[in-house]
Amino acid sequence: MVTLKENERIDDLQLNGLRLIQNSEMFCFGVDAVLLADYAKASIKKGAKVLDLCCGNGIVPILLTAKSKAEFIYGLEVQTESAKLAEKNVVFNGLDEKIKIICDNLKNSELHFKKAVFDNITCNPPYKENGGGLKNTSDSIMIARHEILCTLEDIIRVSSQLLKPTGKLTLIHRPERLADIIILMKKYKIEPKRLRFVHPKYEKTATMILIEGSRGGRPKLVLDPPLYIYKSDGVYSDEIDQIYGRI
Amino acid sequence: MVTLKENERIDDLQLNGLRLIQNSEMFCFGVDAVLLADYAKASIKKGAKVLDLCCGNGIVPILLTAKSKAEFIYGLEVQTESAKLAEKNVVFNGLDEKIKIICDNLKNSELHFKKAVFDNITCNPPYKENGGGLKNTSDSIMIARHEILCTLEDIIRVSSQLLKPTGKLTLIHRPERLADIIILMKKYKIEPKRLRFVHPKYEKTATMILIEGSRGGRPKLVLDPPLYIYKSDGVYSDEIDQIYGRI
Repeated sequence: MVTLKENERIDDLQLNGLRLIQNSEMFCFGVDAVLLADYAKASIKKGAKVLDLCCGNGIVPILLTAKSKAEFIYGLEVQTESAKLAEKNVVFNGLDEKIKIICDNLKNSELHFKKAVFDNITCNPPYKENGGGLKNTSDSIMIARHEILCTLEDIIRVSSQLLKPTGKLTLIHRPERLADIIILMKKYKIEPKRLRFVHPKYEKTATMILIEGSRGGRPKLVLDPPLYIYKSDGVYSDEIDQIYGRI
Repeated sequence: MVTLKENERIDDLQLNGLRLIQNSEMFCFGVDAVLLADYAKASIKKGAKVLDLCCGNGIVPILLTAKSKAEFIYGLEVQTESAKLAEKNVVFNGLDEKIKIICDNLKNSELHFKKAVFDNITCNPPYKENGGGLKNTSDSIMIARHEILCTLEDIIRVSSQLLKPTGKLTLIHRPERLADIIILMKKYKIEPKRLRFVHPKYEKTATMILIEGSRGGRPKLVLDPPLYIYKSDGVYSDEIDQIYGRI
């Protein structure tokens, strides 16, 4: 069926029989990828053309084949090993007619795509700003986490070029970047439209934000109800169980 | 002691014996004014010079005399009747050496104040954008609620002129204006630094935001834990009881 390399394992995505090969030496998907796919699905119409930037091992495109009726999903990933693993996951799940993985820096996206061709773009970007020259840029986990090879501004600028008018950009990020995201979306004519805060528990400060903007949309930001990961220690909230497809 | 006009009543503020005369025909203070004063107090240092824009009947300056060690607090209010009531409240509480009420449009603030003189500015502004010419501009409640005589941009622009470097602007507003507030703060060199969402209950979408920016500050927006008004139907949360000084 599939040959696993050293450090590779197969995880059951508990959704339509989908499974994901992950490599413990590389960036493994977390709840953020699952939340992103779930938040984006509300805006992905039947027949949509979707692009997932910074797609890593392919988790978001793969989830979106089950959570949406998108016609086709591209995944763009700068790291060769991650992109290879994403391709392997596409083939492993029999999704090669629904997903295509491209390995390149998103700053080169004009080499692969025409302008204004996507209905939806999703991205679970590197969260951390690049604070200087301290990081080891050959470390794949470091690249997945830090703005080393692309910045938040790159992601939003490129998305604005690639989205159709009224096309949606959906991001998951950290609350401390909220102001930057809003400023950059406005700068590149993507109007913030939906915002949801993700809290570990209801009494805790939000640790993630889901935000969606519409290219050329009219200003109106709607706040969604808070999303709580746990309802008590170690017990997922009902909504998280729903998102993971467990109930 | 005090002569009440028709429609005036005295409310006990349950804080240091403070009381407030309100007029049921005019805009009466709500939980938002109390939350604003409480959120702002963390940034009001001993000896601070404070300005409350759109001060209405004077609730925020009066609360701040108890909640902070500000040296002096100005209240600016465009509506003559509200400003008179605010003055009456200042005298009624024996605070005429701590608070001065000025009646004018905040767009004329340069007639009253030099630039860069305040440590803190607070504002519980009109929440609703002025959608056109439908409103009765002689209606004092309408003016308190809609951006008829001043806009959000006026408030932030004037605050930027009046704040000292690193002086703080603290606002309470609606979540749907969050993007506008962040954009305008950045435009006028007030860096958003603290943000708190106020939810009616923990499962409900936030209905108010508390946001504070620092004039000329460095970019770093810190999200505070959510504030819940009620812990169950009709029962205030412990934090609201603390803010109101009931426990």
